[in-house]
Amino acid sequence: MQEEFQQHISQRFNDDLADLMHQLLHMGGLVEQQLDLATRALLDSDTALAERVTRQEETVNELDLTLGEACPRMLALRQPAASDLRMVVAISRCVSDLERIGDEADKIADMARTLSTDQSPCGYVEVRHMSQHVSQMLHDVLHAFVRQDINQALAVKARDSEVDEAYASAMRTLITFMMEEPRTIGRVLNILWVLRALERIGDHACNIAEQIVYLVQGRDIRHASPDELDDLIDPKH
Amino acid sequence: MQEEFQQHISQRFNDDLADLMHQLLHMGGLVEQQLDLATRALLDSDTALAERVTRQEETVNELDLTLGEACPRMLALRQPAASDLRMVVAISRCVSDLERIGDEADKIADMARTLSTDQSPCGYVEVRHMSQHVSQMLHDVLHAFVRQDINQALAVKARDSEVDEAYASAMRTLITFMMEEPRTIGRVLNILWVLRALERIGDHACNIAEQIVYLVQGRDIRHASPDELDDLIDPKH
Repeated sequence: MQEEFQQHISQRFNDDLADLMHQLLHMGGLVEQQLDLATRALLDSDTALAERVTRQEETVNELDLTLGEACPRMLALRQPAASDLRMVVAISRCVSDLERIGDEADKIADMARTLSTDQSPCGYVEVRHMSQHVSQMLHDVLHAFVRQDINQALAVKARDSEVDEAYASAMRTLITFMMEEPRTIGRVLNILWVLRALERIGDHACNIAEQIVYLVQGRDIRHASPDELDDLIDPKH
Repeated sequence: MQEEFQQHISQRFNDDLADLMHQLLHMGGLVEQQLDLATRALLDSDTALAERVTRQEETVNELDLTLGEACPRMLALRQPAASDLRMVVAISRCVSDLERIGDEADKIADMARTLSTDQSPCGYVEVRHMSQHVSQMLHDVLHAFVRQDINQALAVKARDSEVDEAYASAMRTLITFMMEEPRTIGRVLNILWVLRALERIGDHACNIAEQIVYLVQGRDIRHASPDELDDLIDPKH
């Protein structure tokens, strides 16, 4: 009887966990789409796409609230231990990063509206390049989360330095451009904010990667040094 | 006997909660100091102060890890309900905002190092003004957290629009300056990043204010509209 009761509890926990995971991945899919739409809105001067990003932001925010309530309640009600506890914590932290990615995508959509009548697409090549890069990182890290794949997670994290380099290089290009054409400064700064938002999205993808390591190994690497990170890579893969 | 056991549990919970709260406030104090030191490092071209900010960041990160582990464990072990549950959740979210404020202060300290040999303190008036404003917001919101004072929390949140206006006004000033002196663009952009970091710190102070409302009223207002916020103010105060 006791055993049956334990199984019942455990089944309830697993059902709840599957439900959380389902909602997290739904949120991840929406946010991926927001990033894609926001970039296209900007590059194609398509304000209708920008509106879709902003509308989708409402759904993402609702999921943030729902999951923000569900995760702590689940910890308190079902008292999970070890890896189950870590799973709920990791989901909760990923929700927070996905919500912030949605915010950044929404800022890009705002800039798309501001720049939609702009005839000088300065910096658009750099935006396209960085956006493709961080989109791929976001896609891969969500995939790694589902598969609990540490090596893929660390690979995503390693690619963040490419984003940082692309960002620094784009900054130099745009600074030179502004020096040559000072009257464009206001407009070019808007592109700088877009690049900054993309760079931040890369950071959030890395935060999610860190949660995968926490989930699988129980190690919180949010403030780990590069050397400590090197020790984590599984040589078998 | 049962009652005694319950009291024992409840006392343990209260001790743990007091300990969490103590660590949170310690973290808050450190982060307040980081913001103050980083701004002074920039305005006085004092790289020694910038170093202190960076060293302090390590302690803040350690507290982030400690509390990041303690909060979910406490939920799972002590199974708090209602306001106790909300208290742990609110502390956990505040930790995350304080950690990000520390990060932003550290970025300002970085800029202080970069700009320490700079002889043209363009934008410094704006930095001083915004820094004083967000420092006060941070100080007040931590105070409101201790006192669980919703009205003070909402007052902090209301002041964020002043930060946004100061930021927008500073941006216009600096854009005009860059147009007139294009060779200063690289340097002035560094000041723009500092202003942006201060604006973000204001946002994080508001996030903490939102957690106070959640704690006291159980309402998650992170994505609430301005009208919904107006309804929260207690007319008795």
